[in-house]
Amino acid sequence: MFIGVDLGGTNMRVGVVNSGGQVFHRLSLPTRVNLGLEEVIERIVSTVLRVVDQARDGGNQIEAVGIGSPGIIDIRTGTIVTSPNFPEWRRVPLKQTMEKRLPYPVFLDNDANAFAYGEKWVGVGRDVQSMVCLTLGTGVGGAIILGGRLWHGADGMAGEVGHMTVQPNGLKCNCGNYGCLESYASASSVVRRALVASRTGTPSMILTLAGGDPEKITSSLVYQAALKGDTLAMQIMKETATYLGIGIANLINLLNPEMIVVGGGLANAWDLIYPTVEDEVCHRAFLTLAQTAKIRKASLGDDAGIIGAAGIACFSLRDVSCAF
Amino acid sequence: MFIGVDLGGTNMRVGVVNSGGQVFHRLSLPTRVNLGLEEVIERIVSTVLRVVDQARDGGNQIEAVGIGSPGIIDIRTGTIVTSPNFPEWRRVPLKQTMEKRLPYPVFLDNDANAFAYGEKWVGVGRDVQSMVCLTLGTGVGGAIILGGRLWHGADGMAGEVGHMTVQPNGLKCNCGNYGCLESYASASSVVRRALVASRTGTPSMILTLAGGDPEKITSSLVYQAALKGDTLAMQIMKETATYLGIGIANLINLLNPEMIVVGGGLANAWDLIYPTVEDEVCHRAFLTLAQTAKIRKASLGDDAGIIGAAGIACFSLRDVSCAF
Repeated sequence: MFIGVDLGGTNMRVGVVNSGGQVFHRLSLPTRVNLGLEEVIERIVSTVLRVVDQARDGGNQIEAVGIGSPGIIDIRTGTIVTSPNFPEWRRVPLKQTMEKRLPYPVFLDNDANAFAYGEKWVGVGRDVQSMVCLTLGTGVGGAIILGGRLWHGADGMAGEVGHMTVQPNGLKCNCGNYGCLESYASASSVVRRALVASRTGTPSMILTLAGGDPEKITSSLVYQAALKGDTLAMQIMKETATYLGIGIANLINLLNPEMIVVGGGLANAWDLIYPTVEDEVCHRAFLTLAQTAKIRKASLGDDAGIIGAAGIACFSLRDVSCAF
Repeated sequence: MFIGVDLGGTNMRVGVVNSGGQVFHRLSLPTRVNLGLEEVIERIVSTVLRVVDQARDGGNQIEAVGIGSPGIIDIRTGTIVTSPNFPEWRRVPLKQTMEKRLPYPVFLDNDANAFAYGEKWVGVGRDVQSMVCLTLGTGVGGAIILGGRLWHGADGMAGEVGHMTVQPNGLKCNCGNYGCLESYASASSVVRRALVASRTGTPSMILTLAGGDPEKITSSLVYQAALKGDTLAMQIMKETATYLGIGIANLINLLNPEMIVVGGGLANAWDLIYPTVEDEVCHRAFLTLAQTAKIRKASLGDDAGIIGAAGIACFSLRDVSCAF
């Protein structure tokens, strides 16, 4: 059994995960970043200990703790270098601090990598040795698994799939660049384009579905409007899927992976976006490579964060040798 | 010592390479594809044996033979699956056939991978563990080294850097897709754009430098015209460098490598294209990643093919374990 800690800026979710990916004894509580670093660490430790107690009552052995956190992580030392969710944290040695308080090894990685570990460990990618994962949420996260292992890159920052330029003169991205995949294929970018169109008076039911309040537009509402045949919503979803397809075709031509896994909130619109994604890949990737690379929706649902975090622990502990 | 065989459609080049990357006893002769498969293999074997004899006279031990060939290679069996340079060859088991005639192990890989092995073994990448190589020639070839090993992909076809879409509605590529990096950054694409412009009467000295014969336009002439301030030539080279920069920025954001190596004929225009490449990378890649990834011109020059082919043998024989 492994403990998974999904450390979000708003909530932390902790659970015990068995080697089949089943989650037991989940706990979720507010992270309360405003209370300061010491207090947040205290909250993580005490939550882990509560979950461990519950697991022990069931007679289970805990092997290690995995923590998934947004931000830039130094995996060698287990340090959160910087994180958008914890703006005041700088080089926080979370692994070291936690290991002083817990009788288990602790492993830390970022949330996109955790997502990939989860899908590889017990999800849709469990039978493949190479895959690229994309999460379409506030941003577009990414992670690359090759030869059964996660490729972290020279600085531990590989996998920035969301910042692949897919339209050189395209929309401005939060990163400062223009035309990143994230500017078209993140859930936020769907909302942003719907907002811009609603301000310019483009006729659409999106605003109506949001109760007339532009602030309440979500990517899910745009998806629903598209399903109902709303022209603007359909255009936005089509554009989103087109650029996602271009990004995926590029990944396939570059890395010749066995699988592409797409998760995050926008993956809920899979039935609508998949045909366009497939069409772009078909036109842009080499046939043999496109036939090899299965494109799949993520499989782990609401527990993906906890399972992925536990997956960090599992893969780090095994330290499987590289197969290529 | 290793034997390197650079098997081209027009010429084969064979040489003995020591572990310092020095080439001895080079031989170059026409491949003569028209004589048929058996005869070409006979020519390779006899040339290798001649070179081996010369090396033995110097008292050297030969460890293995490496062959670099364009096309799709099955590295596990050492088979040329298909190759644009040998259109009539289908699934030629070159490794097996050669090993029957030679007392050395034979290893086969494609020419882009050979290029990368060469640069990693004794070239500009000798001190790095992760790098992406691009060759700007007739097409744009690519190869990816991660954790000190070449990433071949699920079908042995990874590294198709030239077929990354960098302009969704861009120029048509030979592969059928639109806006591939190859449509902008190959030497052939430079020539093609110069030809199209010359046909539409765009004033330029390129045609004059080619003696008035459009058939004689080369990427080198376009480069020379650009150096002399020719507006059209400068535009073409700028566009080439811009898209090359976008492609490289994407590779950096995706793979966070220590180095990008650029070779092939068009790399001779490095002084002209590098500033624009650097500028694009600066704007499009994350700062930390861009600072890590050194962008270098290939270092092995005319002997790159032979050294790279020998590098295939060296890396395959060592079968170094993966470092990540």
